[in-house]
Amino acid sequence: MNLNGDPLMKLSKKNLDTKLDHVYDVIIVGGGAGGLSAAIYLQRYRLSCLVIEKGRGRSFWMQDLRNYVGVDPHMPGRDLLKQGQNHALGVGADYLMGFVEDVKDEGETFKVKVKVGKQDSIYPEFRSKYVVAASGIIDNLPKLENMQNVYDYAGYNLHVCMICDGLDMENLKAGLFVGSEGAINTAFVMNWFTPYISVFTQGLFETSDVMKQKLADHGYPLYEQPLKQFHGHDHEMNGVELVDGTQVPLETGLIAMGSHYFSDYLAGLDLDRDGQDLITDSMCRTSHPRIFALGDLKKGLNQISIAVADGTLAATQIWRDIRRASEPRVWVENLEK
Amino acid sequence: MNLNGDPLMKLSKKNLDTKLDHVYDVIIVGGGAGGLSAAIYLQRYRLSCLVIEKGRGRSFWMQDLRNYVGVDPHMPGRDLLKQGQNHALGVGADYLMGFVEDVKDEGETFKVKVKVGKQDSIYPEFRSKYVVAASGIIDNLPKLENMQNVYDYAGYNLHVCMICDGLDMENLKAGLFVGSEGAINTAFVMNWFTPYISVFTQGLFETSDVMKQKLADHGYPLYEQPLKQFHGHDHEMNGVELVDGTQVPLETGLIAMGSHYFSDYLAGLDLDRDGQDLITDSMCRTSHPRIFALGDLKKGLNQISIAVADGTLAATQIWRDIRRASEPRVWVENLEK
Repeated sequence: MNLNGDPLMKLSKKNLDTKLDHVYDVIIVGGGAGGLSAAIYLQRYRLSCLVIEKGRGRSFWMQDLRNYVGVDPHMPGRDLLKQGQNHALGVGADYLMGFVEDVKDEGETFKVKVKVGKQDSIYPEFRSKYVVAASGIIDNLPKLENMQNVYDYAGYNLHVCMICDGLDMENLKAGLFVGSEGAINTAFVMNWFTPYISVFTQGLFETSDVMKQKLADHGYPLYEQPLKQFHGHDHEMNGVELVDGTQVPLETGLIAMGSHYFSDYLAGLDLDRDGQDLITDSMCRTSHPRIFALGDLKKGLNQISIAVADGTLAATQIWRDIRRASEPRVWVENLEK
Repeated sequence: MNLNGDPLMKLSKKNLDTKLDHVYDVIIVGGGAGGLSAAIYLQRYRLSCLVIEKGRGRSFWMQDLRNYVGVDPHMPGRDLLKQGQNHALGVGADYLMGFVEDVKDEGETFKVKVKVGKQDSIYPEFRSKYVVAASGIIDNLPKLENMQNVYDYAGYNLHVCMICDGLDMENLKAGLFVGSEGAINTAFVMNWFTPYISVFTQGLFETSDVMKQKLADHGYPLYEQPLKQFHGHDHEMNGVELVDGTQVPLETGLIAMGSHYFSDYLAGLDLDRDGQDLITDSMCRTSHPRIFALGDLKKGLNQISIAVADGTLAATQIWRDIRRASEPRVWVENLEK
């Protein structure tokens, strides 16, 4: 039950039709740390919101949170999300597992179309005054024939975030896996943590002579063949094998192949971007006055702490907007005296 | 022990002399949520830091955190701080209980003078390249002869933060305790949560006729006598008694009397401010390039989530500064081939 004694409102195919006529104050696309923070603040501001989560976002995959104040540094991301989900439900947020396909601006409200269920899918449409885009990104991974071989190590000692896990690579033999020449420059930041860096282009592009020389000047070997597979055991990657049979022993690795942005549903809304990042003001408002963006979707550091603060900011600004447009509440009995 | 197997470095009068010759990368003034976040990130960026905490800051007094993703909404602030302190010590931060009296810019380094011990105090001086000001604020409280009467309720149902606890005042009879006419305007935001607001000026100033009329138009009674005492039991305030004997029943209250800023140690450094708030850029850098400010000391929302994100930002920018000024690390064996 939530704080008012009502049952928690986890929506599903079975009961979501009860909410189709409701106009939420806010629909939050994405139930990661940022979206959940927004939901908790909004509900505590006496505003109604629906969180729509597709599942398995970036923090879900993190095995150890490492650097978020207040929780054990070995807490897995999925436990943080579970705690936040219960917290949001406890203050009365609605929560639905589904994939947001489209958001249409109808003037006063948005119409949000959701795909619910992977099989026998249904496509309900919900309405809200505001939308918070908190659907995040996911890291691109090396594409091997056997993807399970990648999943066995990614998020363990094959990292995707240098800020989070750079220290865990300290002075170890590290592979840097890139998909573009620009990303090779990651090596010259990563060397703060370890100088024993081998760069793998996976045969995805031609490396320029200038970059080859720069790598040689630092003593960082370059491997340009496609990957055959990672070697290791028990989620501990210990080397890589290339298609030509070359074996390179490693102790850790960083994948720096860019990210996929989960924001196709915003395509029709023509929001200002810097590259793929949404541009927002200091309160996380995008170039559309009723759409806010949080965390990894916007410019800035991709860290849980940032997403959580973004949720605080967006919720507070939405509350200010709605409150300022509302009639002040007076103490009626005193006025009638 | 920390991650390297070294003993945790909690400094005290007994062992702090071992660190007097050390130049820390960063001294963090304040071990609240923001300062601890900065410490955790800095240590994970392979930088050395010392956290100096005077004790009993604003979050220490919070009985329920309410709105910070990842922890139980009934976790007391002091438990969050304890968790963060162990986390910071675990990644190798030094930590000292003491009161920072002065910070002097020596050019390349700062000299930070600390008072350690309330009795038989000693005044060690530590050095660092950067300073993070994370010492926060504390809310001004009504001044009664018997202050214990205030402490019995402040932080329980006598709140100091509307964003945190507005919902807990929902539709209750609430006292608003102010120390200036400007602060009376808090009533016209607080009425989002409840219209049953009584305003108490405690006889600290004369209320203008315009403001009196505005309150009357909303039906909010105004009491201008000084307070004698709060009534209640078991940390549950249920009314207030004025010096003239008037009794006003209440169910909750909000103290909006401004704050004391713990930043006297920065007085000699002439930092840009907006009122008392330090002005910072998007990475929390003040107008001094080697001084950063976090959380409640700077402009913006006074929320734990914001302070934690600020710690992330400041630490990351300091890392960038130091890293970019350092020689790149090369893989020597490969260069010698």
